[in-house]
Formats: sequence, C-alpha cells, structure tokens
Amino acid sequence: MKLLYPTSVPLDVQSLQGFSVSLHPYDVKAPIPEEHVDADILVTWSNAASNLKDAAQRLKNLKWIQSLAAGPNDVLGAGFDASKITVTTGVGLHDHPVAEHALGLLLCGARRFFEMRDYQLQSKWPGHLGGSFPRSDFTTLRNSRVLIWGFGSIAKTLAPHLTLLGAQVKGIARSAGVRNGVEVFGEDKLNELLPETDALVMILPGSASTQNALNAERLKLLPKHSWVVNVGRGISVDEDALVNSLEKGEIAGAALDVFHTEPLPENSRLWKAPNVVISPHAAGGRPEGSTELIADNLRRFLAQQPLKNKI
Amino acid sequence: MKLLYPTSVPLDVQSLQGFSVSLHPYDVKAPIPEEHVDADILVTWSNAASNLKDAAQRLKNLKWIQSLAAGPNDVLGAGFDASKITVTTGVGLHDHPVAEHALGLLLCGARRFFEMRDYQLQSKWPGHLGGSFPRSDFTTLRNSRVLIWGFGSIAKTLAPHLTLLGAQVKGIARSAGVRNGVEVFGEDKLNELLPETDALVMILPGSASTQNALNAERLKLLPKHSWVVNVGRGISVDEDALVNSLEKGEIAGAALDVFHTEPLPENSRLWKAPNVVISPHAAGGRPEGSTELIADNLRRFLAQQPLKNKI
Repeated sequence: MKLLYPTSVPLDVQSLQGFSVSLHPYDVKAPIPEEHVDADILVTWSNAASNLKDAAQRLKNLKWIQSLAAGPNDVLGAGFDASKITVTTGVGLHDHPVAEHALGLLLCGARRFFEMRDYQLQSKWPGHLGGSFPRSDFTTLRNSRVLIWGFGSIAKTLAPHLTLLGAQVKGIARSAGVRNGVEVFGEDKLNELLPETDALVMILPGSASTQNALNAERLKLLPKHSWVVNVGRGISVDEDALVNSLEKGEIAGAALDVFHTEPLPENSRLWKAPNVVISPHAAGGRPEGSTELIADNLRRFLAQQPLKNKI
Repeated sequence: MKLLYPTSVPLDVQSLQGFSVSLHPYDVKAPIPEEHVDADILVTWSNAASNLKDAAQRLKNLKWIQSLAAGPNDVLGAGFDASKITVTTGVGLHDHPVAEHALGLLLCGARRFFEMRDYQLQSKWPGHLGGSFPRSDFTTLRNSRVLIWGFGSIAKTLAPHLTLLGAQVKGIARSAGVRNGVEVFGEDKLNELLPETDALVMILPGSASTQNALNAERLKLLPKHSWVVNVGRGISVDEDALVNSLEKGEIAGAALDVFHTEPLPENSRLWKAPNVVISPHAAGGRPEGSTELIADNLRRFLAQQPLKNKI
C-alpha cells in the first residue's frame, strides 16, 4: 500500500508511521513521478489544477483522496473516478484560522482600518474616525446583529468571539435548530432576517446550489449601514450585484477573502468599489491538525472503518 | 446646586433628574457662559483646552468635576484648584470600545490588513499573504504570547478575547498577582518577559512616571517578529526609538492609536515607518454607561458618600 503526501504543507511524517503503508512525498505543482502512479492514497493540499487532472488520468490504483481543504472543489473537478475513489475533506482543520480572519475582517469594517490606511499613506490624520464616532452605522460589534449564512464548524468557532464582543449572533443553514447556543434558521427565513442584519458573514461552501446566493434581490434587503463579509467561497456572492449595491449605497461595505476568480483579475470592479476590503484568500491556508486527521483516517482506512469527513 | 453637562456626548438627561440639582447643557469648545460660572459640578468630555483653562479661572464655586475620560489628563492639566475640587474619572466607560479596537489592531498586525490595502489600491493581488502563509512570524493570535502592559479594567476586558483566540496572555502592572485568571507581574519582571513576547499591548495611563516607558532599551528586548500595540496614552512610547527599531527590523510592526502629539503631525516619522498602523485616537470616544455613572456619583455627592472613580 502506498500513500503520497504533499510537500506544500508541514506534516509530522513520523506520526504517520507504524502502518503497513509506504509514505512518499510529492510536489503538488508537478505531475506525479512515474514510479508513484501505483499509489493507493493521495493527500492533497493546494495542488495545481494540472497536477490533479494528470493524477486523475494516471493514478489507476487510487482508492482514497484525503484533501486538507475544507471544500475540495479542486479535487472534485479534476476528473477522478467517483465510483472507485473515496474523497475525504479537511473540514475542521481551518476553523480557527478562518474564524480569526473573519473576526479581523468584521473589525476592519466596523473600525474602518482600511480608511485609516488611505489617510496614513498621505500622512493625514482621519480625525472623523476618532473621538465621538457616530453610532448609527456599523461601527462596533457591540450590540450589533450578525447573521452567519452557512453555519458549519467555522461558524461555530466564530460565534463565541462575536458574542463575547456583545454581538447578537444568528445563523442560516439548510436545517434549522439551536447549535452551540446560536439560533440557526432555515434559508426560508433569510428574507425576514436580512433587513435586521448589521453584518452578514457568508461561510457557504462552493457548489452549484450556492452560486450567486447573495444576489441583487437579497442585497436590497440588507440595511444601508450593513456590511457583508465572505470567507466561504467566492461563487456564493454575485460580484457585479455587490459592486452595484455598494456604488448605490444600498449597503455600507464588504470585506471579501474569496472571489469568483482568484487571483482577483486586475480589471475586477471590486478593487475600486467603495468601502471594499480585498483579502487574498488568506483566511485559511494553514490547516491545523492535518497529521492527526491523516493518521486517524489511515488507521480507519486499513481497518475498513468509516472515514472521517467523507464527502 | 448647579450641574453643567456637555453636549459633546449623548446623555440621557432624564435619568439625572430627581435630585435637588439644576441641570444645564454647555458647549465644550466655548467659554462657559457668564450665567453658569456659579456651577458646583462640571461634567467634561472632549473639552477644548481653552474651555477647561478658562473654567479653572472662572468657576469659583466648583466642587466636583466628573470627567468621562478614562484618564482625564486634560482636566488635571487645566489649573483647577486640586485642594478644593474633587475629580472623578470615566474609567470603565471605555473598556469595551477600547478592548475591541485593540483586538482589531492586533488582528491588523497579524493578518496584515494594512499591507492588503496597499496592494488593493494598485489593483494587485498580494498572493504572498494568502495560501500557506509562513507561521514563524506573528501571523495569528493562536498560540501567540501577548503581554499587556498596564493591567487595568481595559486589559481585563481584552484578555478573554485573546484567550479565546488561543493566545497566552500575561500582564504587567504596578502590583503583581492573578487578576481575572491572568498572571500579572510587577514591572521588575518586564525585562524577563519582553523577550518572550509576540505582541506587546500598551494600556498605560499618561503621567510623568509612564513617559517613554517603552524606550530603545526595552524595544531591543522584544523579538524581531514582535508587534507593539498602543491604546493607552501616546506619552508611554518613545516614538523616535520605536521608528528606529522598526527601520532596523528589531521589531516587526506597531499599531498605534495614541501619540505624543495628536493629531499626529504631518512630519512625524511614524507615518512612513515600515509596518506601522496609524489609528486616530479612535479606540474609545464612545463612553458606555455615562449617564448611570453621573447619576450614581451625583447621588453619592449629595449624600456625602465616597465618589466612584475618584482620583
């Protein structure tokens, strides 16, 4: 049995030893070397699209792909034979880094650090952002109403930070209920909740069903002072509708870590739209507990037990 | 008995009624009108220096000044007769706003939102800040070592946010001990703690004893990857020494909300120093619970009971 692991992320390979499996590093930006096309297991992290497409054609023995990404859209779109190959994700490995980044983006919006930067570059003091800052807008998380759309493990990690800052947090997910003390509503309640939202945090996965989920019609339901933060997948926001909303002042701002096309093309209207914070898909990128997940799933795989995070 | 309250901050004046005291609004940027120089009580908030200096000369009946600032340096320096006038502060009213801002500044440093903004202004994607961002520097609060110098009520409010993000928080204060679960050391331990600090948060009051507390010698003790955040008083950081440290790469960055001179002069070296975030004394500026504090202290004053937050 042969496992290929990526050199694109630090892994504690010693903690993967002790199984009847040979372990081989590989370069995620190049084709898999000929001597490794007999691999049974492929661990992926930030692989080039060409690497995955090539692997889908040449790795005929492949039985299991362990992606370290929360949403392995890259693997799913590469042409692997879904009838033969199990795919498991890295969901959960990114909860803390992404929650921290989302919190930072929310504070960037509320405290206007991006506007302060613009003044700093001109050696100018933005006095209007200090002193008795008006409170009718979204200027603090305190007593603000935050709606998290896509209430999975990242949202569960983020919510307590917002609550501790004094925000009233609600969630939207496919199934309603109370999770970790947060009231989560079904998508049928979205149109009722958007008008009562000061900050909308999008953490939706990327799929056909989430494409342009935040569209012109839903943007119009948000209050004029509200902010949108997206740390899920770029596909879930209609970017043209968002820019239109911002330019018309229908919403107050947007802090985005993900985009339809990444890197964001130089001609995107988002770069120069008012009150937009552009973050380069930097929320995650540092999976935590990768080795432990691989080791646990490897043991399960060999014992023919159900794998964790199976799609 | 006559109380003058400022129009520079929203107060719920109805909640100050019911005492044998007449209540009069006043403009903090102009001299007190002649008909009010007989006032017994003055509430201050963001008063002009000229207003306070003038009031110190003309308000001969004054017995008590309730400042809404955490550190009323403006009142103390205006020339009021300290032997006749009791001064009480607004310490505590700023805990939440300042803690939130400090958290935002820490995340700005760790997540490099200021650098993202510089790229955004050029419609350029800062790919080096995304993906597998290196972790040897201060790039997250998680597992970072945060030292809060000046461990009062703001620090007590800030610490749980940092702990929840996975930081190891320690404090420095005049007296050592465990406060709200955080180990607080005396200043004699500073030189031992600075080399083990990833982020130093300064929340020192402004006084002769805190002037340039963070000086060249102490800056040299911080690790090269460390950040300094100041949300206390500008006077506590030697700004020239800080710029020298940043230019030499002795520390990694600084996020500052307060300065020796405010607004920060256009010729300050800080504007263009590497990895500096300039915030325009915007952490506080929105006292919470002002009316409740004034009402409680007014009752105490009339009952000749000890006032809260007395200097």
